[in-house]
Amino acid sequence: MDSYKKAGVDIDSQERALKEIKKILKRTATSHVLTELGAFGSCVQFPSGQLKEPVLVSSCDGVGTKILIALRSGLLKGIGEDIVNHCVNDVLVQGAIHPLFFMDYFASSRLVPEEMVQVIEGMGEACIENGMALVGGETAEMPGFYVEGVFDLVGFIVSLAEKSQLLPRGTIKKGDIAIALPSNGLHTNGYSLARRIVFEKLKLKPSSKIPGMETTVAEEFLKVHSSYLKPLKRVVTGGWIKAMAHITGGGITDNIPRILPENCDLEVQVGSWEIPELFHFLKKEGKVSTEEMFRVFNMGVGMVLIAGQDRLSTLTSHLKDSGQPFNVIGSVVEGGGHVIYNIGG
Amino acid sequence: MDSYKKAGVDIDSQERALKEIKKILKRTATSHVLTELGAFGSCVQFPSGQLKEPVLVSSCDGVGTKILIALRSGLLKGIGEDIVNHCVNDVLVQGAIHPLFFMDYFASSRLVPEEMVQVIEGMGEACIENGMALVGGETAEMPGFYVEGVFDLVGFIVSLAEKSQLLPRGTIKKGDIAIALPSNGLHTNGYSLARRIVFEKLKLKPSSKIPGMETTVAEEFLKVHSSYLKPLKRVVTGGWIKAMAHITGGGITDNIPRILPENCDLEVQVGSWEIPELFHFLKKEGKVSTEEMFRVFNMGVGMVLIAGQDRLSTLTSHLKDSGQPFNVIGSVVEGGGHVIYNIGG
Repeated sequence: MDSYKKAGVDIDSQERALKEIKKILKRTATSHVLTELGAFGSCVQFPSGQLKEPVLVSSCDGVGTKILIALRSGLLKGIGEDIVNHCVNDVLVQGAIHPLFFMDYFASSRLVPEEMVQVIEGMGEACIENGMALVGGETAEMPGFYVEGVFDLVGFIVSLAEKSQLLPRGTIKKGDIAIALPSNGLHTNGYSLARRIVFEKLKLKPSSKIPGMETTVAEEFLKVHSSYLKPLKRVVTGGWIKAMAHITGGGITDNIPRILPENCDLEVQVGSWEIPELFHFLKKEGKVSTEEMFRVFNMGVGMVLIAGQDRLSTLTSHLKDSGQPFNVIGSVVEGGGHVIYNIGG
Repeated sequence: MDSYKKAGVDIDSQERALKEIKKILKRTATSHVLTELGAFGSCVQFPSGQLKEPVLVSSCDGVGTKILIALRSGLLKGIGEDIVNHCVNDVLVQGAIHPLFFMDYFASSRLVPEEMVQVIEGMGEACIENGMALVGGETAEMPGFYVEGVFDLVGFIVSLAEKSQLLPRGTIKKGDIAIALPSNGLHTNGYSLARRIVFEKLKLKPSSKIPGMETTVAEEFLKVHSSYLKPLKRVVTGGWIKAMAHITGGGITDNIPRILPENCDLEVQVGSWEIPELFHFLKKEGKVSTEEMFRVFNMGVGMVLIAGQDRLSTLTSHLKDSGQPFNVIGSVVEGGGHVIYNIGG
C-alpha cells in the first residue's frame, strides 16, 4: 500500500507545528485582522479613513543562504526577524510607513516542525516590533526538491503609504546630499561569498573566533537585519527626503542607481563612514576586489537617504534626536545614473 | 580573486531575464499600478470607493512538485498559470472576488533565465485572465540549497472582498447542500505520490501514453489548475452560498472541515460525480486505499459550495446559465466536523 506519508509528505507533523504557529499569529493580530490561521485566505479589514489617498506597497523577499549558517548554528529565530525587517525596509524606501500584514512561505524536503516554530517566533516578534500582523502563510514539504537538511523562507509584506508621500520623488538633482544609516553587519546579503571564504577556504566553524576579531562567526553572521522604520517614519511624513535606497543584494553600487535620475551620479566618499571590521576581514581573506566588495556586501551601510541641502539640518537634527546614527557619505553630481567611489582622502 | 559569480550567483543573467519580465508586467498593469519592476516595493493605489467596507484577502502558495514534471516535459508556462489560479481560488472561497495584484518568488540553485521567463509568461496570462496585475516579485539564486536542475515557485495574492460578503458565513446547518465544481485533473496537489507511482513504480516517461487512457503522462499531469472566479463572482455578490472550500492538499477529507461547524458532518455520496479516469488509474497502480485517495487527491472536485436548500435553485440556475458544470454531491448532517463518504449506492 502506497501512501502520501511514504512518498515523503508528513501531513501530521505539519499539523502539530501549525498549532504552535496559531498561537504566535494570535499574539501579532491587530484590530484589523478578521481570520485565524487555517483560513484559505487571510482577511484584513482595510483601515479606511486613515490616509487620504492610500497606496498599498508590497514586497516579497527571501533571506538567502544566511539560513545555512543559522541551521549550522542551531539559532533560527533571528532568521524570522531578518525576513520581516528586510521586507519592512523594502517598502519603507517607497514611503510606506504603515506595515499592515505579513505572510511567509516555509519549504523544505522534510519539515522539522521545531525549526519552523523557531523561525516563526522570530517573525512574530519582529511583526509586533514593526506594528503589523503576521496573518498566515504556507508550509510545503517537497521531497527531492530542497537539499536535505535545509529550508527556504520567503516573506511577503503589505504596507500603506500616503500617495503624496511616495518615494522616490523624482526630484533628485546635482548638489543633493546622501546620508547613510549604518548596518550592523551583513544583514541578509552576500552570504554565498562570505560562507565560501569563512567555511570552505578558512575552514572555520560557526563557533570559531574570527581571526583578528573578538566575536565568533555565528555572532557576526547572524546579527539581525535592522529595521529602519521607527527613526524614518517622521522623515517620510515630514517630506524631508527625496529618495531612499535599501542596501541589499547588489550593494551600494547597484541599489543607488535604482533611485538616481539618468543624468546624475552619486559620488560616495569612501572613508566618510566606518566600514566594520568584518568586511575588511572578508576582503583580505577572500582576496576580493574593492569593486566586488561594494557590489556584494552592504559595507556597513543599511540605508541611504537622499535629501536636498535645504532639508539637511532638519533631517540630521531629527536623526540625532532619535538616537539614529548616520553619516553624510556623498553628494549628487552630473553623470549617468551610477555610483562613483572617491577613495582618495 | 574570489567573486560572487564564482560563488554561484550570476547577477548578469538575472538582469537579462528581468528585462523580459518587465514587459510581461507592463501587459498586466491595471490603472491602479504606480510602479514598474525594479522598485524596492510595488505600489498599487487602493481602489477607494468601490466597496463599502473593503477587506484585503491574501494568500500565499506554491505549486509543489508539479514543477518537476513540467521541467521534465519542458513545458513551464502552465506552472505560472497554476500558481495564479490556485491563489485566486484560495481567496475566492473567502468571498474575495476582486483580485488586485500578484507577486511571485522564483528560486533555484542556478537560475535558467529562459525557464523563469516561460513561467512568468504563464503568470502574466493568468493574471490578465483574472483581471489583476502582476506587480513584481523576487528571484533568488541559492547554490547548494535547491537540488540541481529544479526551482521553486511561490505566489502571493491580494484580493478585495466586501465585508458583508465574506465567507464562510458560519450559518451552515443540517440539511444544507454541497455542490461540487469539477477539477480538470490533479490541479496542483498529490504530485509527490503521483510521480512516485508513474515514474518510479511504472517507469513511465512524460511522453508515455497512460495505460488504458488516450492521453500522455505530461498531458494529464500538466493540465492547468482551473480558476473558478468568473462563474462564482455572481454567486458571492448574490449571497447564495454559506461557504466554499477549495479542494487542494488534504483533498475533500481535510478541506471541507475547514468550513464546517463543529457539530456538523458533510455526508458525501461517492458516485454522485464522475471521478476522472486518472484517479482510478493512480489508485489501482499505486495500490492506494480509498481513504488515502480522498485525502491526497481532489478526486475530480475542484471546489465545493455549501448552500441552504432555499437558495439551491437560484444557485444551480446561475451555474447552468454560466456554462459551469456542477454536481450535487452531498448534504450536511449532524456530526463532529468531518466528511463521511457514503460509498454504497
